[in-house]
Amino acid sequence: MNPTSALVELLETYHDLHSNWVERFDQPPSPVEFLQIIRRNRPVIISNGFSHWPAVEKWDSSYLKDKITGDITIAQTPFGNADSVVKNNEDGVEYFVKPHTTQGSFAEFLDHLQNDTRESSDPVQYAQSQDDNLHGEYSTLLSDIDEEIPWASVLGTPDAINLWIGNGRSTSALHKDNYENLYCVLSGLKSFVLISPLEVACVRERTLPSATYKADADGGFKIVPDDPPSDVSCWPTLDPDNPEKTSPFWDLCKPLRVDVHPGEILYLPAMWYHKVSQKCAPGSMCIAVNYWYDMDHSGPFYSLCQFVRSSSLLLANGPTFTY
Amino acid sequence: MNPTSALVELLETYHDLHSNWVERFDQPPSPVEFLQIIRRNRPVIISNGFSHWPAVEKWDSSYLKDKITGDITIAQTPFGNADSVVKNNEDGVEYFVKPHTTQGSFAEFLDHLQNDTRESSDPVQYAQSQDDNLHGEYSTLLSDIDEEIPWASVLGTPDAINLWIGNGRSTSALHKDNYENLYCVLSGLKSFVLISPLEVACVRERTLPSATYKADADGGFKIVPDDPPSDVSCWPTLDPDNPEKTSPFWDLCKPLRVDVHPGEILYLPAMWYHKVSQKCAPGSMCIAVNYWYDMDHSGPFYSLCQFVRSSSLLLANGPTFTY
Repeated sequence: MNPTSALVELLETYHDLHSNWVERFDQPPSPVEFLQIIRRNRPVIISNGFSHWPAVEKWDSSYLKDKITGDITIAQTPFGNADSVVKNNEDGVEYFVKPHTTQGSFAEFLDHLQNDTRESSDPVQYAQSQDDNLHGEYSTLLSDIDEEIPWASVLGTPDAINLWIGNGRSTSALHKDNYENLYCVLSGLKSFVLISPLEVACVRERTLPSATYKADADGGFKIVPDDPPSDVSCWPTLDPDNPEKTSPFWDLCKPLRVDVHPGEILYLPAMWYHKVSQKCAPGSMCIAVNYWYDMDHSGPFYSLCQFVRSSSLLLANGPTFTY
Repeated sequence: MNPTSALVELLETYHDLHSNWVERFDQPPSPVEFLQIIRRNRPVIISNGFSHWPAVEKWDSSYLKDKITGDITIAQTPFGNADSVVKNNEDGVEYFVKPHTTQGSFAEFLDHLQNDTRESSDPVQYAQSQDDNLHGEYSTLLSDIDEEIPWASVLGTPDAINLWIGNGRSTSALHKDNYENLYCVLSGLKSFVLISPLEVACVRERTLPSATYKADADGGFKIVPDDPPSDVSCWPTLDPDNPEKTSPFWDLCKPLRVDVHPGEILYLPAMWYHKVSQKCAPGSMCIAVNYWYDMDHSGPFYSLCQFVRSSSLLLANGPTFTY
């Protein structure tokens, strides 16, 4: 046994004890069943969890344009790549790049989204402000959904409820959130790649300087390092759809791949890495609502995940071992 | 950061996030509350969980003697030290030593127990067969307790329900069980020292050859190595009441110490190390009933604990690190 074999054993044991698919439930779980799911820290798909929401019937383009009359926050990127690692050709440095954000009319945003195609070279627009926006700029839509999901109240009250509106040109690069997440798809198809926090050795986490896209006058984008400079740490830099060159431990990884259809909820456990891409029919939109609940930092799980991270980084970076 | 500092950080973070006392509940939890407790993998004490059992009123000496008419299994040791590490003076080797077991009349066992004092040099006797004995040799007592604890059914049906009858001369050396344990004290006082599975580096686990005490004709004991030879692995050899000479990581350990009184239930989470000593008034007995439930080997906890064990043993034993 050496440190590498200990880590290999961890991942092999963990995978031996779990299926390599995402379990599906036809009906919402009871609070007790949901706690058992949370305890296992495995993603599941739940059907028929929000079919009673007025949003399911109501949320078409004209209704949304009627209800959202103020300006909204729009994320703009050249390739639909918000919060992702991009090499800046100007200085040759890889940055963690945040999208260019603008404020604009919701109606114009929606028109653009619906006329936008994969062939377009226009900037990709995405309404994805993850700031509890259903209590903020979209609060007129709040009565169309439930503010609490009854069986999920075992996790407390949601810290944030976010509306996401985009199209098939946007992709969320692999990342993780320290929240228990219930992700409800209302229209379009969301394809998730899901990687357990135990597989941290496989995703090549790095510390990167942060930057922001700035739109040019001619419709292009410039990467502008943040001033004052700041770093983003523990950011997974692996693309699970193009992993070959990034991580020596990739062979140990068993990503779960799952499509979440309209009417379905993905329970995405805290600290799981996820990459999300989406599809929607030409002229339509991808709409989702997600609930973020505080994760439990007490209990053994958080501390243990940090330990696996430290151990994995030591192995990946070839530490000086001292006793 | 090096492997030692990663382990130090794990234990310091874990302790920072948790109290160093055992939480007490005045009433039994609901199933949802109990699942939250299990999820935190922390011991708790629950009062008033079995005050309705007929056993609470009925179980005195004469009633027990009336009901238990068959022979029972009695564990005998020189010092009350069942399943403990003992150095055999004959060959100088440290063994994992199991008690000498006999079958005998319950009435005689009880008489001996009640007349036994700390000053005695007689063998220490303990009825502690952990083989679901309330469905076996003590089945006539089963109707005096509940076969299931309603709020604990979220863990399934108990794998075993065990009766323990002894006196203040018996001690259970530090050990762990791969079971979720509900330990109900009916009479006497049980003092637990509890150590988290994350603290495996602190308890000096070792692999030891196993042996069994054999009673001599003159009332003494001989340590007889098992034939064919066998080993017990991952056995914690630290005595938390006399730790100074055993583990270089002991300073990182924060054992919880708690007394469980009659009428109280200790929830002892799976894989927690525990040492148990007991007290009862002269002429009386220490009686407890415990419920063992299968632990969840799926989910991340079991695999993560094994990883901390491997990492800790590598540090303790000074491995050759290879990449």
